Amino acid sequence: MIKTDILIIGAGPSGLFAVFEAGLLKLKCHLIDALPQPGGQCSEIYPKKPIYDIPGFPEVLAGDLVTNLMEQIKPFEPGFTLGERAQTIDKQEDGSFIVTTNKGTKHHAPVVVIAGGLGSFEPRKPPIANITDFEDKGVAYIIREPEDYRDKKVVIAGGGDSALDWAIYLADVASEVSLVHRRNDFRGALDSVEKVEELSKIGKINLITNAEVTDLKGEEGLESVVITHKDSAREKEIKETDYFIPLFGLSPKLGPIADWGLQIEKNAIKVDNAYDYQTNIPGVYAIGDVNTYPGKLKLILCGFHEAAIMCQSAYQRIFPDKKYVMKYTTVSGVSGFDGSKKEAKKEVVKSIN
Amino acid sequence: MIKTDILIIGAGPSGLFAVFEAGLLKLKCHLIDALPQPGGQCSEIYPKKPIYDIPGFPEVLAGDLVTNLMEQIKPFEPGFTLGERAQTIDKQEDGSFIVTTNKGTKHHAPVVVIAGGLGSFEPRKPPIANITDFEDKGVAYIIREPEDYRDKKVVIAGGGDSALDWAIYLADVASEVSLVHRRNDFRGALDSVEKVEELSKIGKINLITNAEVTDLKGEEGLESVVITHKDSAREKEIKETDYFIPLFGLSPKLGPIADWGLQIEKNAIKVDNAYDYQTNIPGVYAIGDVNTYPGKLKLILCGFHEAAIMCQSAYQRIFPDKKYVMKYTTVSGVSGFDGSKKEAKKEVVKSIN
Repeated sequence: MIKTDILIIGAGPSGLFAVFEAGLLKLKCHLIDALPQPGGQCSEIYPKKPIYDIPGFPEVLAGDLVTNLMEQIKPFEPGFTLGERAQTIDKQEDGSFIVTTNKGTKHHAPVVVIAGGLGSFEPRKPPIANITDFEDKGVAYIIREPEDYRDKKVVIAGGGDSALDWAIYLADVASEVSLVHRRNDFRGALDSVEKVEELSKIGKINLITNAEVTDLKGEEGLESVVITHKDSAREKEIKETDYFIPLFGLSPKLGPIADWGLQIEKNAIKVDNAYDYQTNIPGVYAIGDVNTYPGKLKLILCGFHEAAIMCQSAYQRIFPDKKYVMKYTTVSGVSGFDGSKKEAKKEVVKSIN
Repeated sequence: MIKTDILIIGAGPSGLFAVFEAGLLKLKCHLIDALPQPGGQCSEIYPKKPIYDIPGFPEVLAGDLVTNLMEQIKPFEPGFTLGERAQTIDKQEDGSFIVTTNKGTKHHAPVVVIAGGLGSFEPRKPPIANITDFEDKGVAYIIREPEDYRDKKVVIAGGGDSALDWAIYLADVASEVSLVHRRNDFRGALDSVEKVEELSKIGKINLITNAEVTDLKGEEGLESVVITHKDSAREKEIKETDYFIPLFGLSPKLGPIADWGLQIEKNAIKVDNAYDYQTNIPGVYAIGDVNTYPGKLKLILCGFHEAAIMCQSAYQRIFPDKKYVMKYTTVSGVSGFDGSKKEAKKEVVKSIN
């Protein structure tokens, strides 16, 4: 059982910044995220895209924003349960909560904060009848550890940046890489498209366009992948395939949280009108893109604000008898749980006669 | 008459960021500030102090935050009326407002946003009976243009960073600099204190400690400054003085805005509960440290959020019939009024056969 003060579901920018604001109040945080790394969409979907509306950054790459936030919260030593989806929530007699993931990891905290963005990102699956039979037995929708594919025979499907980038990367790792795409047109960074073209010419990527994977075969696990060419309807089987990796993007789903008894409106969690971003379940808050209230704007900068306000309320819930007096970081500095201390250079008092 | 879409009173971080959010909605902004430069407290009071709680900046100097914000809003060409205090507001028949400064500059806009921080910073004045008689006639509380003091005889009073820094700076500009402080102890950066000591030893600063300026003399304007030593009560007159500059810090006052008919609570302007940060006067908003609502936190990052939310409401007020569909800067980029365009590198669609 993982114990913490504030359990944050979703490790995107709002959830990460909540760790900092909680840390200033001496509250510890633990984050759960279905993705294999922190940063939410910023890391998973558009790490190399610039964001222009983060205050104080005329331009910042989404991935760099996450890196900065990770550095900012480091002194507060957040815990992470990554690659697992928060599945169930159970309210305890003392008002605290136990949240269990799809892999059975249990987390116990007096305050739960849902910072789930647009939901947990579920891979878009190709319409292959028996694909679920092979999940974790040769079919993967997300590449978590590229080394898993070393010296393996891999079939990737898709025509976007993910498919292109991983085909390029795995060309040097896997024993054989096939890239299957249902069109001839690829939609991705120009240099990635050109690189795939080049690797295809020298035989390092087996490029199969205008074709789709239509069937998977195997007894215990995946053994071969059947590809159908669109024009000819001719079938081709890639035998002795170790992995089939369809990379058709991710689509956000609120997921199991939708069944937690929270008020949901248009796929978002209703919170009180911006007072402290608490949901209809006392002790459960929702911040960032996952929440809704009159006037809500789905901007990262709004999630930051909501994180700060939420922490004040969480503090009162955890310490109902203490009064917290806010101190400015410029005046009081930042004291990390790791013993670190950042503070402004103090003025000196010095005599001159 | 200066005309704009959103007239912002206060050019601190919240006011500056409002220019950006307004610009995304194609609304133009003009800012009024009593201080001679943008940035509010960050520029005037603590430009060299680090702030640790701006999201995405593990550490940023207050002055650098302002520099970044100025760069971020540059494409939206904000106008500035600096060194003037917003004095009166007059509602026009069409619902728009005319705001006039203490120097008579008039501004006309359909929306007024008060982003006044803790108020306008008024200099703390020393208790010299006739000091107001010499204001703008030899007495200055803020140094706006150091060149005004070239080859002049100057008396500075104070024992903090401002007094130390300006005494050092003017030692090379003025014909004579006296620094008067009522104690022997100076409270400032160590190197500033040491520099003043050094300049005093070589006769470039006339250092008078344990003494106070107790009287000012002159017919048309300032002519001489009377200094009383604290222990001996002995008086000394510095004749033919051109300027007396007491630098005793600034203290925030809500100022004339307090008389605009706004609901005020604990020296802050009440706004609706975080719906759009509108005051009791429709069309007048208050954002940042100057406002109050249940759960309010006086943090710069909260001012940023309030600026973004306010702009959506201002847009509806200015264009009641248009529906604005929010676009993400990462997707749509930023189009400046100056013709500039920032945008993410677009993905390409390219065929491979």
